[in-house]
Amino acid sequence: MNYRTIGSFLSNVLKIEAALLLLPIITSIIYHESVGIYYLLTAAIILIVGILFGLKKEDAPIFYAKEGFVSVGLAWLLMGLFGCLPFVMSKEIPDFVNALFETISGFTTTGSSILSAPEELSYTANLWRCLTHWIGGMGVIVFMLAIFPSNSGSNMHLMRAESPGPQVGKLVPKVKQTARMLYIIYIFITILEMVVLYIAGMPLYDAVCAAFGSAGTGGFGIKNDSMASYSTLIQIIINIFILMFGVNFNIYYVLLRSKDKKEIFRNEELRWYFGIIIVAVLLISLNTINYFNSYGQAFQQASFQVASIITTTGYATTDFNLWPSFSKGLLVLLMFFGACAGSTGGGIKLSRIILTLKIVKAEILHYIRPNQVKSIKLDGKNVDKGVLKSVGAYMLIFMVVLAISVLLVSLDNVTLEESFTSVVATLNNIGPGLGKVGPCGNYGSLSYFSKFVLIFDMLAGRLELLPILLLISPKTYKKI
Amino acid sequence: MNYRTIGSFLSNVLKIEAALLLLPIITSIIYHESVGIYYLLTAAIILIVGILFGLKKEDAPIFYAKEGFVSVGLAWLLMGLFGCLPFVMSKEIPDFVNALFETISGFTTTGSSILSAPEELSYTANLWRCLTHWIGGMGVIVFMLAIFPSNSGSNMHLMRAESPGPQVGKLVPKVKQTARMLYIIYIFITILEMVVLYIAGMPLYDAVCAAFGSAGTGGFGIKNDSMASYSTLIQIIINIFILMFGVNFNIYYVLLRSKDKKEIFRNEELRWYFGIIIVAVLLISLNTINYFNSYGQAFQQASFQVASIITTTGYATTDFNLWPSFSKGLLVLLMFFGACAGSTGGGIKLSRIILTLKIVKAEILHYIRPNQVKSIKLDGKNVDKGVLKSVGAYMLIFMVVLAISVLLVSLDNVTLEESFTSVVATLNNIGPGLGKVGPCGNYGSLSYFSKFVLIFDMLAGRLELLPILLLISPKTYKKI
Repeated sequence: MNYRTIGSFLSNVLKIEAALLLLPIITSIIYHESVGIYYLLTAAIILIVGILFGLKKEDAPIFYAKEGFVSVGLAWLLMGLFGCLPFVMSKEIPDFVNALFETISGFTTTGSSILSAPEELSYTANLWRCLTHWIGGMGVIVFMLAIFPSNSGSNMHLMRAESPGPQVGKLVPKVKQTARMLYIIYIFITILEMVVLYIAGMPLYDAVCAAFGSAGTGGFGIKNDSMASYSTLIQIIINIFILMFGVNFNIYYVLLRSKDKKEIFRNEELRWYFGIIIVAVLLISLNTINYFNSYGQAFQQASFQVASIITTTGYATTDFNLWPSFSKGLLVLLMFFGACAGSTGGGIKLSRIILTLKIVKAEILHYIRPNQVKSIKLDGKNVDKGVLKSVGAYMLIFMVVLAISVLLVSLDNVTLEESFTSVVATLNNIGPGLGKVGPCGNYGSLSYFSKFVLIFDMLAGRLELLPILLLISPKTYKKI
Repeated sequence: MNYRTIGSFLSNVLKIEAALLLLPIITSIIYHESVGIYYLLTAAIILIVGILFGLKKEDAPIFYAKEGFVSVGLAWLLMGLFGCLPFVMSKEIPDFVNALFETISGFTTTGSSILSAPEELSYTANLWRCLTHWIGGMGVIVFMLAIFPSNSGSNMHLMRAESPGPQVGKLVPKVKQTARMLYIIYIFITILEMVVLYIAGMPLYDAVCAAFGSAGTGGFGIKNDSMASYSTLIQIIINIFILMFGVNFNIYYVLLRSKDKKEIFRNEELRWYFGIIIVAVLLISLNTINYFNSYGQAFQQASFQVASIITTTGYATTDFNLWPSFSKGLLVLLMFFGACAGSTGGGIKLSRIILTLKIVKAEILHYIRPNQVKSIKLDGKNVDKGVLKSVGAYMLIFMVVLAISVLLVSLDNVTLEESFTSVVATLNNIGPGLGKVGPCGNYGSLSYFSKFVLIFDMLAGRLELLPILLLISPKTYKKI
């Protein structure tokens, strides 16, 4: 393990976090809130630690897969540990574990909150909460790669460790250019959402927070009823934008640059994404029709909840905890699916689900026609056997982490439905589960032990399991 | 598809079923119950259909994998369809779907019942219910292979399709001898259990039924409280015997024949089996201590429930539905594990779980040490890559079937916990789930639609997915 390399990497990550704290500091100045001083203090602490980490610099740090995974895992953990300090110091969330839970939930774009009334927080604190979603959505390391000069070849490992989905799509040959392109698209759509929401009548502050939260597919509401009290128009606008952030960003790149714009329709994952959404919305509308005043309302509410869950955002406009079992079951299933690879969404990712279904189909066909060899295709191209193997392994690892976590959380004073859905909602970076952790509840009443399990799950889910599992595996640190 | 081959195969299976009906017929004579006439009538119908199926006989039917799977799937479906006739004709279970559910639940050794008071049935009916468990436990096709003369090479496909676990252990080189050996051990331990239970004070009839049910790891009780009202001694005896039936029958063969009896301790699955049971019993005893009068009672009750669930038997001596979430969650996890391969138990089978965990570990290690190639071992031997691939595929197919089934059952008037555990309990051939399908409840109140879904799951679980999936796949019947 090359500790010096890791140190200088962490140094850069912390410097960025310090810089990002400027936004809540500016907010505190605008709203004349004294809590701003704690954000300034935190920024100073982070900067000092960052400088200390970077003292023994290397010119061209080289990352191998293991160092890449461990560095990314550590970076996310540190971001959470330092990022929660303003909450603790300002006593807005005085309990350290709660503050850490909230911050990790923010960075991992989960959106599970321990707060029963987020509207009581300062403007500064709520902006920081929503900003963590935005940073975590596209990833701080991708941001770092976009701005710092570095050895491009070995950085692929870093980007791979943080980017969602089975493979990093190669937009442009160089990592740095890819990272920049991703952030330009990301910033553009985020600002577009803020503007549209503001024009539609949302207060500017709310629009900024809502856009940060939906861009990162996070889901922290600045009100306890999430998005329920905004107008239908605003709900529909947010609905459209969260769907956009669930799409693979390659698609936008193709739309911007490629001459053959029809290319995007050949993207299988995109077709499944909209196909699943349409089917789920129709089924849930039919199933919940008696809960609403009109077909239109049932449809609109089903659309919002389906989009919010499948993209792993977790905003809610209604308490789906009260819906019939079928609709709840379908939403829980969608929690596993997640959005497209290469989007800011969490979950298993649709492309893995599609490949899993294709593996299952191929396996059954194999018994029907043992002599017929058919390779598995995606977007019309043969999928490499290594990718299939790693998708299969990913699903198995996911199941094991899920089962152990559910068992550990069920030691708490919760029902099985609550322990199961709290793990599903955090491991997939959704936010709300069912029961007392449902859209109108929160995670505050869980024990410290459960909160640590769920913090682990949020990090494991956001970084797609391996970085966090490697971080806690003793073998990682053993010399061969 | 070679329909003539399948026909003559089904003919033999039906003849065996007709012969087995003699046992309830004899019971009806002993207890002077008039319902016996319906069992006689059913036996006659089955015999006639069996003879008709076998009219166009082939001398040496050859089975390929596809025909093997479809034949076995059809055989089990037919056994259920004909086997439920006495219940319907005698009006003891007048509803056809309920009777079919009960019979398939019997043959698949699930033990999920639609009856709220099985003690109201005739002796004849209850014996037939428990006998179906015994037949289904080791498998009617294995029985057929043991007694009918046949082409041994191609019968491997048949045995493979019905026998539980990732591979059929090769006790002796010939299928026929293997099948005979399995049945001799099976009959011996079953009779031993009957005798021991009788000596311990259980009424003879109850002892016969309880032994049939535990041998097949079935779980139908002849009383609604299952085994709760029997003495502690009887409960402990049953506890020991169900644990024995969850062990791979190869182990008994080794104990009988091999000179090196220590060989069995090298069996990794067996060590895990007892290891998991001990840990689970201790954890549940500690977790439920407040529910019982003494440590001893908590331990005894935990032992019984753990053994009953992990072997997928499903007998109960207490209502674990009332236990705390952790104990319930642990029992649900054990439902997935199942017993050892090559036992009469259902579930995913421990060897698959062990291999899955090893695949997961190897995948994580691969990222830590990419240059180190380590093959996965079981019992000290390298595991073939084809086996690993099929284990992985099995887990994925299992998840897909589980997810779809839960969604379909949740259309019924049930909670998510009920739809989830009813599918888990039937797909793994356990019996009771949680909530209204818990140990003190039954499956009677579910809709016909849910019952058909669960019938499918019971068959899919018992035959380890492929035979039933092939049976319903349109591609199976298409010519290439």
